[in-house]
Amino acid sequence: MVQAVALARNEEGISAALGILKQQFGERFHTGASIREQHAHTTTWIVNQPPDGVVFARSTQEVADVVKVCAAHKVPIIPFGTGTSLEGHVNAPAGGISIDVSEMDKVLEVNAGDLDCRVQPGVTRMALNTHLRDQGLFFPIDPGADASIGGMAATRASGTNAVRYGTMKDNVLSVEAVMPDGKIIRTASRARKSSAGYDLTRLLVGSEGTLGIITEITLRLQGIPEAISAASCSFPTVAAACETVMAVIQYGLPVARIELLDALVVKAVNSYSKLELPETPLLLLEFHGSEAGVAEQAETFGVLAEEFGGTGYTATTSAEERTKLWQARHDAYWAMLALRKGCKAVATDVCVPISKLAEAVGAANEKSGELGLVAPVVGHAGDGNFHASVLVDMDDPEEVGRAERFVSWLNDRAIALGGTCTGEHGIGQGKRPYLVKELGGAVDVMASIKRALDPDDIMNPGKILP
Amino acid sequence: MVQAVALARNEEGISAALGILKQQFGERFHTGASIREQHAHTTTWIVNQPPDGVVFARSTQEVADVVKVCAAHKVPIIPFGTGTSLEGHVNAPAGGISIDVSEMDKVLEVNAGDLDCRVQPGVTRMALNTHLRDQGLFFPIDPGADASIGGMAATRASGTNAVRYGTMKDNVLSVEAVMPDGKIIRTASRARKSSAGYDLTRLLVGSEGTLGIITEITLRLQGIPEAISAASCSFPTVAAACETVMAVIQYGLPVARIELLDALVVKAVNSYSKLELPETPLLLLEFHGSEAGVAEQAETFGVLAEEFGGTGYTATTSAEERTKLWQARHDAYWAMLALRKGCKAVATDVCVPISKLAEAVGAANEKSGELGLVAPVVGHAGDGNFHASVLVDMDDPEEVGRAERFVSWLNDRAIALGGTCTGEHGIGQGKRPYLVKELGGAVDVMASIKRALDPDDIMNPGKILP
Repeated sequence: MVQAVALARNEEGISAALGILKQQFGERFHTGASIREQHAHTTTWIVNQPPDGVVFARSTQEVADVVKVCAAHKVPIIPFGTGTSLEGHVNAPAGGISIDVSEMDKVLEVNAGDLDCRVQPGVTRMALNTHLRDQGLFFPIDPGADASIGGMAATRASGTNAVRYGTMKDNVLSVEAVMPDGKIIRTASRARKSSAGYDLTRLLVGSEGTLGIITEITLRLQGIPEAISAASCSFPTVAAACETVMAVIQYGLPVARIELLDALVVKAVNSYSKLELPETPLLLLEFHGSEAGVAEQAETFGVLAEEFGGTGYTATTSAEERTKLWQARHDAYWAMLALRKGCKAVATDVCVPISKLAEAVGAANEKSGELGLVAPVVGHAGDGNFHASVLVDMDDPEEVGRAERFVSWLNDRAIALGGTCTGEHGIGQGKRPYLVKELGGAVDVMASIKRALDPDDIMNPGKILP
Repeated sequence: MVQAVALARNEEGISAALGILKQQFGERFHTGASIREQHAHTTTWIVNQPPDGVVFARSTQEVADVVKVCAAHKVPIIPFGTGTSLEGHVNAPAGGISIDVSEMDKVLEVNAGDLDCRVQPGVTRMALNTHLRDQGLFFPIDPGADASIGGMAATRASGTNAVRYGTMKDNVLSVEAVMPDGKIIRTASRARKSSAGYDLTRLLVGSEGTLGIITEITLRLQGIPEAISAASCSFPTVAAACETVMAVIQYGLPVARIELLDALVVKAVNSYSKLELPETPLLLLEFHGSEAGVAEQAETFGVLAEEFGGTGYTATTSAEERTKLWQARHDAYWAMLALRKGCKAVATDVCVPISKLAEAVGAANEKSGELGLVAPVVGHAGDGNFHASVLVDMDDPEEVGRAERFVSWLNDRAIALGGTCTGEHGIGQGKRPYLVKELGGAVDVMASIKRALDPDDIMNPGKILP
């Protein structure tokens, strides 16, 4: 495992907080080793750093109660949703208390007329969409995992639909949050837009639990489109696929999804899911709109793709066919893992201006080859965001070293191309050095804000800031 | 005029700064009364509070130089773009230095392939669109006035296109800013999305110059649509028009503009522009897309409008006809002013959830009538945002008092309906008490951030925070 920095522990404070919380929460407060480990980092390759205790909170007031106890004793607090974050966000490098919000899972209000809803942070995106379906509504952000809405807000998540519907920053109208002093605030009204003071909504979205704990989220919703069309198209090279994506974006074609799978992923999926796709780069697409609208979009895409050598283009509005077309994407993670049994898939998450996507993906493929690594690429191509997942034998320290070199090289390369080290996963523990490389002095401003709001650094310490 | 609170002046510091800046900037530093007055508030009814001097800066470095002088002497700094803000944003209640960025008017870079550009803050939105036209691109945010991009970012402006293209918060990719200590930061990369740390871009957008001075803006652009269709439709009541808007939004019809004019505005425009529109509430629309797409949108709107009693529905793709249809909207401001010669039009800017729009506009019409005021309403109806412009005889203190009661009542009402006191104009001096009513304890968090970044309160003091 890759070591994460351990921070100094406040043993006295932790011990006091453990006693008080046991008293206050009884059976909903846990200190057993296995539950603590489950509440620390379990994805990718960062070492597991368990908290000292786990509280299952059931209300905003309970979250505030825990925060007040921890604030009084200067004990770290780590918010926990579903634990699907990828950069060590839920680790407890200085120990402390994990606040698990999975029991805060109520959809509190759906305002169909306003296309918005208010939910507790433990509601998962799939549960929300199940809840909304009967009203003809959906929440578009899809990061893959069935993450909690609170966690998605905290990491500024996005995923396959972002090219059309934006990221969490665009789809959160306001949040309620418990601040480091235990005070409860609401950041904005339910109006669709506002110029009322500093945008605390956007400050908390993406703050990864380091400024406060999100206890309610008001979300923008979408009407389920009248028609959905799915499509796939093969390309001779990654460059040809990326050029097609650029043309789509420049044309203003309102694709809902446009995903890139490189040849290695396609090969993996063919083998894993018994498909017979040409083993060349593939674009998978989805169009949302009216019947006529999606037909027109699909046709326009076909014309653009042909210009760049696209072949085997298929589009369909049948739900069954759509599932089949997208199977390659849905199975990609497990298919990639099957390429090298027993390995960990270490996620990267760079995002570059679209015009640099072909160059960046090409360079990533070349570099992983040079380093003797297996690192298949899937990408949210319409945003310029892609994940090279390095398949690493964690028992081979030399290989782990090469993988670390690759990740570091890729982050640096993306930054040099005018991009970011993280399009959607967040900084967490893993990317802190790259944040400084990317934004320089702006990180000092972030640190000033952190110190002002959380002077004792109790809110998810050791994350984001160096 | 309505008095704005005057803050204590640091005479010694101001005098020192005036001397140094005169030395440094020579003829680009002004202390004449008329230029100082022009750089303070000149719109609506807040009293003019001139700065002590005005610098015309030509580069980020020059802005930083001025900030360093002012920081050393604890002298207020007020950024100035085109002076079209509406809530006293450019007033200098404690004196100080106005930094005019109108000479920082270069479009620095257009990346057509990425649909983005980088501009200096003094570029106006019309100048930008003129610059972009040949490349088939446009910047969609249209607040009415030919405001500077820097000012639009600082007030989180929006306007008629926001229902489709969002506000400045959605269209700024990153900013360069000079912070209160004179340091220059860049808030984000050029990637279309990012989860890299706190969202300082969105913190500065809408901060009204109170946290730093925006010296460069990277903007998202749009391709000029293949087809544009304009439409207008009359309704028997404001409620019927608002219900149609709700239906449009719920249906997911991607209207680019959907503007409401109440009967009084229509009457004013008929008289001012010699039109013969039915003197009932009117919706004006614009559809952007492919030829077939806009035709389908226009048709769908017609069907929806008919359900709510819409009459006289006309849609056209001819540019000339479009101008004619929209003439009522373009002339609305001057037409309203002509309703009562010699009066000031005092802008309000509430924004409510769409489902409350009919109720809010209806109540505003009723209340202004009750108070014996003339207050025509135009609205960015698709966002739930509307402006009741109170026509006030500023020489009649009793009438000014009634107008103040109306503004106060309307802001309170919007907040009670789950909305905001400002959809797009910002807080400035005028709305500070309402910000507290609207967001309560969240304003304390804003104040903590302000103190952390600007401990001496030199950045546009007396704005936003109470």
